[in-house]
Amino acid sequence: MPRYALKVEYHGGPFVGWQRQSKLPSIQGSIEQALSVLEAGDHTIVAAGRTDAGVHAVGQVAHCDLTTFWNPFRLSEALNFHLKPRPISIVSCVLVDDNWHARFSALERQYEFRILCRRAPLTHESGLAWHIKHSLDVTAMQKGADYLLGKHDFTTFRSSICQASSPVKTLDELTVKEIALRNGSEIRFIVRARSFLHNQVRSFVGTLERVGAGAWPPEGVLEALSAKDRAACGPVSPPDGLYLKSVKYPKEPFG
Amino acid sequence: MPRYALKVEYHGGPFVGWQRQSKLPSIQGSIEQALSVLEAGDHTIVAAGRTDAGVHAVGQVAHCDLTTFWNPFRLSEALNFHLKPRPISIVSCVLVDDNWHARFSALERQYEFRILCRRAPLTHESGLAWHIKHSLDVTAMQKGADYLLGKHDFTTFRSSICQASSPVKTLDELTVKEIALRNGSEIRFIVRARSFLHNQVRSFVGTLERVGAGAWPPEGVLEALSAKDRAACGPVSPPDGLYLKSVKYPKEPFG
Repeated sequence: MPRYALKVEYHGGPFVGWQRQSKLPSIQGSIEQALSVLEAGDHTIVAAGRTDAGVHAVGQVAHCDLTTFWNPFRLSEALNFHLKPRPISIVSCVLVDDNWHARFSALERQYEFRILCRRAPLTHESGLAWHIKHSLDVTAMQKGADYLLGKHDFTTFRSSICQASSPVKTLDELTVKEIALRNGSEIRFIVRARSFLHNQVRSFVGTLERVGAGAWPPEGVLEALSAKDRAACGPVSPPDGLYLKSVKYPKEPFG
Repeated sequence: MPRYALKVEYHGGPFVGWQRQSKLPSIQGSIEQALSVLEAGDHTIVAAGRTDAGVHAVGQVAHCDLTTFWNPFRLSEALNFHLKPRPISIVSCVLVDDNWHARFSALERQYEFRILCRRAPLTHESGLAWHIKHSLDVTAMQKGADYLLGKHDFTTFRSSICQASSPVKTLDELTVKEIALRNGSEIRFIVRARSFLHNQVRSFVGTLERVGAGAWPPEGVLEALSAKDRAACGPVSPPDGLYLKSVKYPKEPFG
């Protein structure tokens, strides 16, 4: 059976998340449904990262198996046709080896998180960023973020329903940038790791927001990490600002 | 009566346009309704540019008259509270002279138009840009655009319902830029003039798109302009990509 890798972009707002749930709109379910129009029967696709309700993607990667050979470009066009009007878009599609796996072959996931700091409500970017009415101290946030780099037991930053077998992960990057805007500023977090625990990025961002607001000292992040206790975490951020940006493989499948 | 200048940002999607229409949702009507909660009675506000249905703004300017003095920041906060959940946001508010006029004091309007060129459907930017599936030749479009600069009779680029007394306007800038994106490219038009005819920017963009696609030579724009005939215009672009970006006054009111 030929296997295809799909690069998927979506607006997380209308969905319960990536994962299929009977009768509720999910990204996985929507793509599987589109596949079943192309080839009758049940389809099961696998993604690099199972994003939560409201979380966006610009570079999610999934794979699907079909019984007949498709021209990859025509497959992406046909899927996009049947995905309409849902905000899910197949931006790239390639034929891959039978043993290539969107989840298990992945070497690294990169997430981005956007905060918009301004007094006025959001209009065009409503649902696309976390809106915060006060300003944030980026230097303090970066100082706090630096304590999280490397290999740690991230129990503090892991949701209680996380299914990972171990809370130990290696964080490769957590960069905090500020971009000046017409009416305020945008704070952007770039987060890279081989894999993540459930709610890990949103737990990082929610905790670092407290540091940026001056409610926590940067060293509070180290204390929270060392506590290895979910109760030591700051508030978990809303999903609106989170984007699965890219997934890295031993050889870039999309060329 | 104290007069206030408001800088207004909005998503044009849910509205019939700036201008109040009985029983239909408009930006003007929404702000006037919010004002009537703050001070009972009818309110009439005036804008620098009356944008059409679906057209966005990041820097629309309007003025309103109130009977009592308000702290301008508190006024903007109160308006934003009463505008919820509509995607209209007062991003700045200042007290101005009684004879200051959002429309008649304006020296220049700047619009921006966004085209996203890519095969895959839009997700996060659906409704926020004109989606085109083919690529566009920016050099050819800029060559066509250059014929439009300066003082001309713009009858060709004016909608049949335009109420301006004269079709003669002076175009100060029409710049076409290309920005490379992950999956395609963005074309951005920057358009500046003291004032515009109805549908002028969308008529420019729709015509230049034909040039970028190779269907028209750049010189076709000069021929269309010279014809002084609405029938010589290319197709009018959809409103989704158009933003009223800023309005210039003899003295910047928002400091």
